[in-house]
Amino acid sequence: MRAGETNGLTDVPGLRVGHATLRGPGALTGTTVVLTPAGGAVAGVDVRGAAPGTRETDLLDPRRLVDRVHAVVFSGGSAYGLAAADGVMRRLEADGVGFPVGREPGHVVPIVPAAVVFDLLRGGDFGARPDASTGAAAYDDARAPAGSAAVRQGVIGAGTGAVAGGLKGGVGSASAVLSGGGTVAALVVLNAAGSAVHPETGEPYGARYGLPGEFATLQRPDPEELAAVRAAGTLRTAVEGPLRATTLALLGTDLTLTKSQCTLLAGMGADGLARAVRPVHTMHDGDTTFALSTTARPAPDGDDLHELLAAGADCVSRAIVHALLAADPVGPYPSYTSALPTAVP
Amino acid sequence: MRAGETNGLTDVPGLRVGHATLRGPGALTGTTVVLTPAGGAVAGVDVRGAAPGTRETDLLDPRRLVDRVHAVVFSGGSAYGLAAADGVMRRLEADGVGFPVGREPGHVVPIVPAAVVFDLLRGGDFGARPDASTGAAAYDDARAPAGSAAVRQGVIGAGTGAVAGGLKGGVGSASAVLSGGGTVAALVVLNAAGSAVHPETGEPYGARYGLPGEFATLQRPDPEELAAVRAAGTLRTAVEGPLRATTLALLGTDLTLTKSQCTLLAGMGADGLARAVRPVHTMHDGDTTFALSTTARPAPDGDDLHELLAAGADCVSRAIVHALLAADPVGPYPSYTSALPTAVP
Repeated sequence: MRAGETNGLTDVPGLRVGHATLRGPGALTGTTVVLTPAGGAVAGVDVRGAAPGTRETDLLDPRRLVDRVHAVVFSGGSAYGLAAADGVMRRLEADGVGFPVGREPGHVVPIVPAAVVFDLLRGGDFGARPDASTGAAAYDDARAPAGSAAVRQGVIGAGTGAVAGGLKGGVGSASAVLSGGGTVAALVVLNAAGSAVHPETGEPYGARYGLPGEFATLQRPDPEELAAVRAAGTLRTAVEGPLRATTLALLGTDLTLTKSQCTLLAGMGADGLARAVRPVHTMHDGDTTFALSTTARPAPDGDDLHELLAAGADCVSRAIVHALLAADPVGPYPSYTSALPTAVP
Repeated sequence: MRAGETNGLTDVPGLRVGHATLRGPGALTGTTVVLTPAGGAVAGVDVRGAAPGTRETDLLDPRRLVDRVHAVVFSGGSAYGLAAADGVMRRLEADGVGFPVGREPGHVVPIVPAAVVFDLLRGGDFGARPDASTGAAAYDDARAPAGSAAVRQGVIGAGTGAVAGGLKGGVGSASAVLSGGGTVAALVVLNAAGSAVHPETGEPYGARYGLPGEFATLQRPDPEELAAVRAAGTLRTAVEGPLRATTLALLGTDLTLTKSQCTLLAGMGADGLARAVRPVHTMHDGDTTFALSTTARPAPDGDDLHELLAAGADCVSRAIVHALLAADPVGPYPSYTSALPTAVP
């Protein structure tokens, strides 16, 4: 198995990714949007964390009717950030994209599930939060040429204020080309009460699931360097205090999946998250995973579906590592590469 | 059993109801908000319709952590109307009400579940929809003295554009005083693909569950009048065409319930809806029922819980009838009382 051309979500043809970043005096947050092809994508969701903040997830239950969504919004700002989806909906409406509900082409209701991460006060100003205009800006960014290029990772969009286990979190992505030629890929916003790094070795938990050569430059950090970082409390092994977080993930594939299969894929993605973050899905996280099928390729048979699900889970684990490695240090939060420079020589 | 003082949701001490109505050239929609006491209310939800539009319902799953909500928003505008909750959140924040997440008293995240009804184009203008400002206006209305008075029913708030089975729908409410002195009450937005009226008799389905004397003035309508209404297609027995709807309900009680018990109560409310609307929970509806416990009174024992649940279900059935009777005719939609005047002499 190999990664797609950019090793990211946009390796799935038709999926676009846009970011809006709020970073400045008091602000450290933002919004990321994933756009589907205009006809929408089949979708599923898996909510595992104890403290989710979501909208339009009930309609993703396979017992419900609507089976195509037009965008998925990830945002900082805790529940306030759900407002970002309003801006994305209005932009989609203006572009005529949505579920048709009237006789005129513009009479559409865009289906835009959303989930948020907790990053309030990370920038200092409680009121500096994404709103509808931030969602609209992320949409505009996704529609620009950069929206279909390699996913921009690290301290950007919904990952701007993200922190995981004391290290800076952020946006990460990864992809895999399946044996039949289809693609599965993941985008994550790593922002966890737990940690993505094994405290005894300094190894990112997800690195062992890398494709051949993917994390070849990673080394075990110098023991004294690691001990110093551990002593500073940066590699937490337990949740301390009233920390609040949430890691979000989205899986995409061009293979045709049913809504139930998308729900299954989302659940497998949550398993990939479990392998890369420990502890995960805690009382302090609202971890939520979505899955999208653009249906550009035929439905997989049994073996191909198995391969897709397993590779999808690994894409989430790998994307977590990419988020960790792409992050820059911000304020009081060192990044993996700044805290453990001997791990990434 | 008897009704509370106003036979409506505000008979539950501490619950307030506010409306914002958008009615004018092109507009026929609005938003209704239910506010809890400042400390919040324990809450549950039951989603039954095939086409729900919701936010912040995942956190109501009893497996999730947050067990107090600060408001519930019902809105017209289909998924666009979810924006109304943004305005309610900002008002609650300004009033210092929400889940505390920082050291300062104002650092709160209000928990505001929301659900929407489909009423797009009922007023003619596709763009005339509730937004964040509509939610804020409903909040201000709930905080005014009227917010704790008898619930204003009929063509108002989220019920402004509501239609049920060809007749005008709207807001309805009902309450019951339990044998131990506690109260259970319901508020509904009747907007259904199915009908709330038996086509053979003209009787509102829910009327048979009325408290003694509650619907004493209702009579079987004149057979010729009923036949004419039926011939006009106003009392539909089957869903025709691409009709979209959604009936929303909220149950409130002052008895202390757990989150799981609130979920159970919400499910019983959905059963009360099933007795009053036929068919219900269809592919064209996003029917969603919430339940709130203010916890002002002690937890009920087994028998009292049974009484509460059964009376709660009946409150929803009765509130549907009140919505039907309180509605005025609007545009092409006759009301029950305008279509069948001999039923309400």
